[in-house]
Amino acid sequence: MPTTVKAYVASSPTSELTPGTVERRDPGDFDVQISIKYTGICHSDIHAARGDWASNYPLVVGHEIVGVVEAVGPKVTRHSVGDRVGVGCFVDSCRECVNCRAGEEQYCLQGATSTYNSFGRDGLPTAGGYSTSIVVDENYVVRIPDGIPLPDAAPLLCAGITMYAPLRNWKAGPGKRVAIIGMGGLGHMGVKIAAALGAEVTVLSQSLKKQEDAVRLGANSYYATSEPATFEYLKGQLDLIINTVSADIDVDAYLSLLALDGTMVLVGLPSKPLSQRAWSLVEFRRNLSGSRMGGIRQTQEMLDFCATHGLGADVEVIHASQINEAFERVLASDVRYRFVIDATTF
Amino acid sequence: MPTTVKAYVASSPTSELTPGTVERRDPGDFDVQISIKYTGICHSDIHAARGDWASNYPLVVGHEIVGVVEAVGPKVTRHSVGDRVGVGCFVDSCRECVNCRAGEEQYCLQGATSTYNSFGRDGLPTAGGYSTSIVVDENYVVRIPDGIPLPDAAPLLCAGITMYAPLRNWKAGPGKRVAIIGMGGLGHMGVKIAAALGAEVTVLSQSLKKQEDAVRLGANSYYATSEPATFEYLKGQLDLIINTVSADIDVDAYLSLLALDGTMVLVGLPSKPLSQRAWSLVEFRRNLSGSRMGGIRQTQEMLDFCATHGLGADVEVIHASQINEAFERVLASDVRYRFVIDATTF
Repeated sequence: MPTTVKAYVASSPTSELTPGTVERRDPGDFDVQISIKYTGICHSDIHAARGDWASNYPLVVGHEIVGVVEAVGPKVTRHSVGDRVGVGCFVDSCRECVNCRAGEEQYCLQGATSTYNSFGRDGLPTAGGYSTSIVVDENYVVRIPDGIPLPDAAPLLCAGITMYAPLRNWKAGPGKRVAIIGMGGLGHMGVKIAAALGAEVTVLSQSLKKQEDAVRLGANSYYATSEPATFEYLKGQLDLIINTVSADIDVDAYLSLLALDGTMVLVGLPSKPLSQRAWSLVEFRRNLSGSRMGGIRQTQEMLDFCATHGLGADVEVIHASQINEAFERVLASDVRYRFVIDATTF
Repeated sequence: MPTTVKAYVASSPTSELTPGTVERRDPGDFDVQISIKYTGICHSDIHAARGDWASNYPLVVGHEIVGVVEAVGPKVTRHSVGDRVGVGCFVDSCRECVNCRAGEEQYCLQGATSTYNSFGRDGLPTAGGYSTSIVVDENYVVRIPDGIPLPDAAPLLCAGITMYAPLRNWKAGPGKRVAIIGMGGLGHMGVKIAAALGAEVTVLSQSLKKQEDAVRLGANSYYATSEPATFEYLKGQLDLIINTVSADIDVDAYLSLLALDGTMVLVGLPSKPLSQRAWSLVEFRRNLSGSRMGGIRQTQEMLDFCATHGLGADVEVIHASQINEAFERVLASDVRYRFVIDATTF
């Protein structure tokens, strides 16, 4: 017997989110039923709610979910009632392909099952974290270490891992000159994590508005990309650039900042194709790469790393009734740095 | 007192190469004077001779040079009179920048001194291998192992190292699925080297014309890129693609052939910018990269590797009087797989 729980629901691409309900399955053998405490607002939620990507309505978005286990299926071994846990961008994957077996479920060859706007093994639509409860297979649920306050932990499940994964995979650390393009929800976590990894961190942002914040979060330097001098000054001075910005950018200009063997990693998805001269890559054996989220194992590693280093997102906790206003503020980059919804208000 | 030696000379972008002369300096303390035996014809020679890139005339091209040492400066320790030696795409570099110190002189931050169409430390124009003799600093001269016939060795100095460097740097070897786009001068060396490294080698060529050759050179499979089915069949099946083709290509289509963490390396320089969707990179953490030649140390390593594995280029030896005709045949891809000029005919 599925349970009906409170949720905030998008009914069409053009309607605001409104209070409603969503059905949750009873926990199966390996399921964990989570009482949601907080859910972060990710830019993707807005794209999905507004149908920018093909969406099925009614839709409950949200994939930065933290809560407490309230029930477990009889065969669950990884989590117990009362545990602080989190759920990120996906809730299942094939578990059999080479990528799943390598712990890179986000690259599942069958396509990982997204936390919302997808279909589960039962054939039913998945529904995300803008609700009071969710039921997820234990293998796709991570532990939230005690050191991280729950509201600050929520954005780690998407923004945090999306930055941690490329920083780790491209070996950010002492002696590495890392730049983060964009000081938003993703970027601010990138600065914190890169600094905690021991890298030399530069922020590249349109204006100098967020410079003080960046330094407070651990950046060593900060440059306005609206200043052409920035590109002269930093030419060949970086080893790794993570681009969190989905707007069109001058790829050649950013590649020119990379030293020999440097890499620019895209974690956003600009809607238009990117373009660059071959020479920008060939000149100093540079790389243009992409990265999406991280696997479950690396997500847990990221949470443990954040707890060890006292990291969490900078959040503004809101009531569910403020979601539509928050969406507008996200689109206007008017948030420092992530909205998190108090799930008691759904 | 400079010495005047025979050469084939481009006098303007529109004139054919004609017999002429070029001045060579007397060997300085650290110089090696080389009696040139063979010089390969690289596509770059044609671009330079015809002024596609800014050129200074009169111009003597050629950067796939092999010969025998005929004199050495008093402080030379690396080479002796009578040694079989080679010179590739550059004859000097700053020797002080981080890349030079790392043995990556081709990425010299001051710009390596090209073998032709550049200026040496003496301020005089450099002149390449379409001539009977050349004088080069010993540090930019490599040994040609006895096992490789000199004509077959010449193309290794550019085509060989241009393929060897990315194959080694991106770890082609057993278990790696490597594809070479294009079966020309570069591509045919790529197939040989990748096969000798133990990789599983696929050739992607416009038509099936060169399939038999590819298999003879060590390819495991061969696909026509004019067939859309090729892109369906190979989807996600490759780890490394080296693109030797300078024509415009559908980057998204080629990236789609790469598995998780796969890399496509550009070694050619298409004149138009390349374009691809961010998703093609993000989807499976793929990389688009570039590579140019290799350093002196790696060039020597490549030559030793080729000798050990009995590799050389497949060449057609021509007389100097055939150079202009050979240029046309290179442009028409009508050579299997590299023209090499007999230097006794200059």
